[in-house]
Amino acid sequence: MLYFENDYSHGCHPHVLKRLADTNLIPAAGYGEDEFSQRARKLIRAACSAPNADVFFISGGTQTNAVAIGGLLRPWEGVVSPVSGHIGVHEAGAVEFTGHKVLPLPGRFGKLAPADLLGYLSGFYADPNRDHMVFPGMVYISHPTEYGTLYSLRELEDISDICKSFHIPLYMDGARLAYALAADTDVTLPHIARLCDVFYIGGTKCGALCGEALVFPKGAPEHFGTVTKQRGAMLAKGRLCGVQFEALFENGLYFEIGSSAVALALRIKEGLRSRGFELFMDSPTNQQFPIFKNALLERLADRLTYSFWQPLGGDSSVVRLATSWATAPEDVEELFKVLDNCRGEV
Amino acid sequence: MLYFENDYSHGCHPHVLKRLADTNLIPAAGYGEDEFSQRARKLIRAACSAPNADVFFISGGTQTNAVAIGGLLRPWEGVVSPVSGHIGVHEAGAVEFTGHKVLPLPGRFGKLAPADLLGYLSGFYADPNRDHMVFPGMVYISHPTEYGTLYSLRELEDISDICKSFHIPLYMDGARLAYALAADTDVTLPHIARLCDVFYIGGTKCGALCGEALVFPKGAPEHFGTVTKQRGAMLAKGRLCGVQFEALFENGLYFEIGSSAVALALRIKEGLRSRGFELFMDSPTNQQFPIFKNALLERLADRLTYSFWQPLGGDSSVVRLATSWATAPEDVEELFKVLDNCRGEV
Amino acid sequence: MLYFENDYSHGCHPHVLKRLADTNLIPAAGYGEDEFSQRARKLIRAACSAPNADVFFISGGTQTNAVAIGGLLRPWEGVVSPVSGHIGVHEAGAVEFTGHKVLPLPGRFGKLAPADLLGYLSGFYADPNRDHMVFPGMVYISHPTEYGTLYSLRELEDISDICKSFHIPLYMDGARLAYALAADTDVTLPHIARLCDVFYIGGTKCGALCGEALVFPKGAPEHFGTVTKQRGAMLAKGRLCGVQFEALFENGLYFEIGSSAVALALRIKEGLRSRGFELFMDSPTNQQFPIFKNALLERLADRLTYSFWQPLGGDSSVVRLATSWATAPEDVEELFKVLDNCRGEV
Amino acid sequence: MLYFENDYSHGCHPHVLKRLADTNLIPAAGYGEDEFSQRARKLIRAACSAPNADVFFISGGTQTNAVAIGGLLRPWEGVVSPVSGHIGVHEAGAVEFTGHKVLPLPGRFGKLAPADLLGYLSGFYADPNRDHMVFPGMVYISHPTEYGTLYSLRELEDISDICKSFHIPLYMDGARLAYALAADTDVTLPHIARLCDVFYIGGTKCGALCGEALVFPKGAPEHFGTVTKQRGAMLAKGRLCGVQFEALFENGLYFEIGSSAVALALRIKEGLRSRGFELFMDSPTNQQFPIFKNALLERLADRLTYSFWQPLGGDSSVVRLATSWATAPEDVEELFKVLDNCRGEV
Repeated sequence: MLYFENDYSHGCHPHVLKRLADTNLIPAAGYGEDEFSQRARKLIRAACSAPNADVFFISGGTQTNAVAIGGLLRPWEGVVSPVSGHIGVHEAGAVEFTGHKVLPLPGRFGKLAPADLLGYLSGFYADPNRDHMVFPGMVYISHPTEYGTLYSLRELEDISDICKSFHIPLYMDGARLAYALAADTDVTLPHIARLCDVFYIGGTKCGALCGEALVFPKGAPEHFGTVTKQRGAMLAKGRLCGVQFEALFENGLYFEIGSSAVALALRIKEGLRSRGFELFMDSPTNQQFPIFKNALLERLADRLTYSFWQPLGGDSSVVRLATSWATAPEDVEELFKVLDNCRGEV
Repeated sequence: MLYFENDYSHGCHPHVLKRLADTNLIPAAGYGEDEFSQRARKLIRAACSAPNADVFFISGGTQTNAVAIGGLLRPWEGVVSPVSGHIGVHEAGAVEFTGHKVLPLPGRFGKLAPADLLGYLSGFYADPNRDHMVFPGMVYISHPTEYGTLYSLRELEDISDICKSFHIPLYMDGARLAYALAADTDVTLPHIARLCDVFYIGGTKCGALCGEALVFPKGAPEHFGTVTKQRGAMLAKGRLCGVQFEALFENGLYFEIGSSAVALALRIKEGLRSRGFELFMDSPTNQQFPIFKNALLERLADRLTYSFWQPLGGDSSVVRLATSWATAPEDVEELFKVLDNCRGEV
Repeated sequence: MLYFENDYSHGCHPHVLKRLADTNLIPAAGYGEDEFSQRARKLIRAACSAPNADVFFISGGTQTNAVAIGGLLRPWEGVVSPVSGHIGVHEAGAVEFTGHKVLPLPGRFGKLAPADLLGYLSGFYADPNRDHMVFPGMVYISHPTEYGTLYSLRELEDISDICKSFHIPLYMDGARLAYALAADTDVTLPHIARLCDVFYIGGTKCGALCGEALVFPKGAPEHFGTVTKQRGAMLAKGRLCGVQFEALFENGLYFEIGSSAVALALRIKEGLRSRGFELFMDSPTNQQFPIFKNALLERLADRLTYSFWQPLGGDSSVVRLATSWATAPEDVEELFKVLDNCRGEV
Repeated sequence: MLYFENDYSHGCHPHVLKRLADTNLIPAAGYGEDEFSQRARKLIRAACSAPNADVFFISGGTQTNAVAIGGLLRPWEGVVSPVSGHIGVHEAGAVEFTGHKVLPLPGRFGKLAPADLLGYLSGFYADPNRDHMVFPGMVYISHPTEYGTLYSLRELEDISDICKSFHIPLYMDGARLAYALAADTDVTLPHIARLCDVFYIGGTKCGALCGEALVFPKGAPEHFGTVTKQRGAMLAKGRLCGVQFEALFENGLYFEIGSSAVALALRIKEGLRSRGFELFMDSPTNQQFPIFKNALLERLADRLTYSFWQPLGGDSSVVRLATSWATAPEDVEELFKVLDNCRGEV
């Protein structure tokens, strides 16, 4: 069976595992005060060119989003998100559970257009009834988006400028940030640290066993550690995340993981196109969204794992193929063979 | 430096680490549907003699408590807890964050007395103003307690009977359950599964890198998986907990870890007593609470890590010494030497 | 100045005031257990043909919605609402504050189309990722809607049938229910009580000083009184609402208030049309939505109060004119005069 | 039947009713922007000698407490309260519903001792584990307390100073403030406004039909109006509270209501003592707590309403007798007659 279902189906990158093994018997402080977490924070600050950044390690993405958003919003505020944002769809209402509304704006293959954001915010403050409404208190974007798409530097700057002019923080969900940084893009980690007020560097979907690094480039709000504890987001063995993020950032491993997966994903994109398959949209990252005939999908069922994305009407569907550190070049070749064979059979 | 500060200062038990390494490249389903989690659930069901149990793996203890309590209580209910219960003191208000009150009852070295519980519940239902009050909707106990003490089977049965007669579930926080099961006690895991409606088997403090197994012996309430997702308690790589709990339960490792740590803790207790040190109370598990002169503590500072528990007035304090899978018999011998030397210096 | 801004700008209907005065010195029990509230409940049960109904009196509409929705939803559920529903727009996130998501569906001048509801619910249960999403746990509709429009009996029956088939309650926000019942409609209060699981009969906007009657036609869920207390929705002097609702329902006053206001609103509609003014949409109730030139609105500013609804682009806007028990036929004549004069001046 | 059960059993003071009637047909803006509310705010500012005060009118006491406390606390904070505080006992968990813990301290007949507060706060900040605990973010006191007792000016100053030194606001629940101000006390409304950061002037239990005036002497936090809306605490017909509070404060009525009730309560206290009845404690306000034999209570049952307070063991109980604006001197005489007769019968 070929695995292209997602980027979290295997354990962790071998180097991460090795570091866990190497450090296993070293005693350390709890709750993120350990030496590994401290070194990982330094490495992340350096990678972000953000020497004053505060970094919190949290076990998973939904939790990171809920703590960051719920912990920063004030009681009368909600978070603006493109309608397809993960927080508004596949997190089971985690933000609302913290008492705050997700304010949906139109999205374009996962992206929030600066003009849509500006129009909404201007309209809100022009509305004489706004005191009876949820105030926009933060902007949420994901990068890459749920569709694998990316913001350009210009777009990020525009969104950041709009947020600044309305005095609301910009938050980036970087569950798959490694793949964004490795893509053909003009956006770097220091750009993100400069333009966002808070963002997270995803570990779980980028080679770690678990863990996300929540970064406040200009420093965290007071008592944020207690807020993470209150919301169940502080691991007693904080070293588990510390060791892994140290491994991911000490020799550029995080970027290598991204590069390898993106290169293979682009090879898949090219191979699909050359075989005449249509792509739902153009993704520059590790997730590709081909349109397959349903008959073909039936044939593929026991040879390939993929994620079903959406029916297209007629006899076709969109599926998602994802690569990761665990994807080998041979897997891509095998994918093409399987596709060629199965298509022949249909 | 000697480490007796807590039972989560090292990585994980070597066998757990080996299993993580051995399974690292095997692809698996996400969100706890993987084969490792499924096998771990079977092993836990068997160990509990609870063939219909539902088991959820969650990354940490505070989160497990908050999800179990907040997810089960109905809007008008709170959770009864001895005043020293972890949920009421050192979880930063995690239960209240879910909208529910912790209803404190007196505790006796961490334990809830059945008579106190019965008195409170009877009094509540006799109070004509009870409709303006928070209803007791669950009882929380920890086993071992925060003081390392244990309930006897008779006490557990009494508490369970009281809960049943008032139609409220009994929940046990088993953050350190391995040490309870290994102590000189008449309470077994099947007893716990029979007497509690829900409990958790702690991993983080009992040899795992992270993870707790939340067990509903008679089956979980509907949609509980969605509730864990909503509260950030569902790991994408659920395999991380699955593999570890499979390792902990496949050959009795969980019980061995407990036995080893408790044996060394009792050796410490005996050694302390034989040296004339007083113990704050009598703990049968892996946490011991000696009373040391403050002058002695100063001497110990750079040779031994311990947890400061409470000042006693005068010139003494209570400290906690904890053992774990990572404690070696030599560490105990060394502890005695250090104590003997430092006491000589005072 | 002519007052057509809303239906809550005056005190209460004179008969309601008289009853408050007449009963003022009669002592009564607190928290809704008083004789007035008990009689009001009986009158409401009779008017609804729902002899087993439970009725709670709550001081305002947002609070009633939040208590009814937040009190009934289970943790994993949200409430489905047409996108223009009051709970999703002008209640400042009151539902989200209770921890639950408002799930928006398209609306047609405030109304939820049965086909849209069915499509959404069917789609939800066909989605393999639904366990990571907010479950639809209730359907919210307003009647009249925020646009003054009404559901037909057939539409209500269809929505009710869909809810039943998905086992979720149907909730109706009746902030202006008096005007719905008085309109040219085939929907009666007993129909509503038969088709909804819970609804409220608005007092504040229908002639009372304050207060809404939340009705559970088949009986309330257990401990709902405690839930209202917990959420600040239980008045100590429950008699304040009891007396008013007794007055509103003892001799058909509630229906008279509706009839009078609707008759005058229809006279306004006719008068506007005959003068060549366009209406944004066709409302059969006490709110009318004419389209006025902005230049005309400037002229009207110091002679007439209205609610600004929305700009239409170009040089026109939609405004809302509302009638109530306090509107006299002469006010309508005067409105026409003012319009004729001001239009002449433009 | 004689009514001494509580101070909210009748309608409103006749002057308040008259003002409601006189203003009934005057149109006004909604949501607290009406002229009555504006004038009432001015009167309250003057009575408090707090010219910059912001005042919000809210329909009931539990709601006022929940909005004030839940709206001001930050996520990591709870509210300190004497253990008998209304928020911790008879508000059904309304504060916890907003996500915050009530931190109970010992009380002395309802009062928080400055020394207890200082000891707790000092201890909290000395605790090295405080980042895992709920931070004290506000202090709650009631005045009069639930036992009718009062703080002296010196005590209030001490508590206020302690709060200031720990940078946390002091909040006073003034559900029965009229009776505190009318008692033999050195505490005035301007003192309260100077020493508290926020407090409420109770209307419901002091002569109004409903309504409490929440006062921020130095100005409210930003967007507090939206917070009241979100939590269902903003009345559409804000005039209902505005008219009443204007009536209560325009000619000193609020103080007269207090004086009259307290004078009669003291007459009751004296009469009870002269008859040899013991009082549970010494209350200087409108609530008196005599100890009656249970046999006497049985005799009184159909001649007198009172509140049962607590059993005393043996054959006696504490009951509460409360006076209000509706209590006449003749009622007190009649009370003594009834007591004399019933005691004779026992």
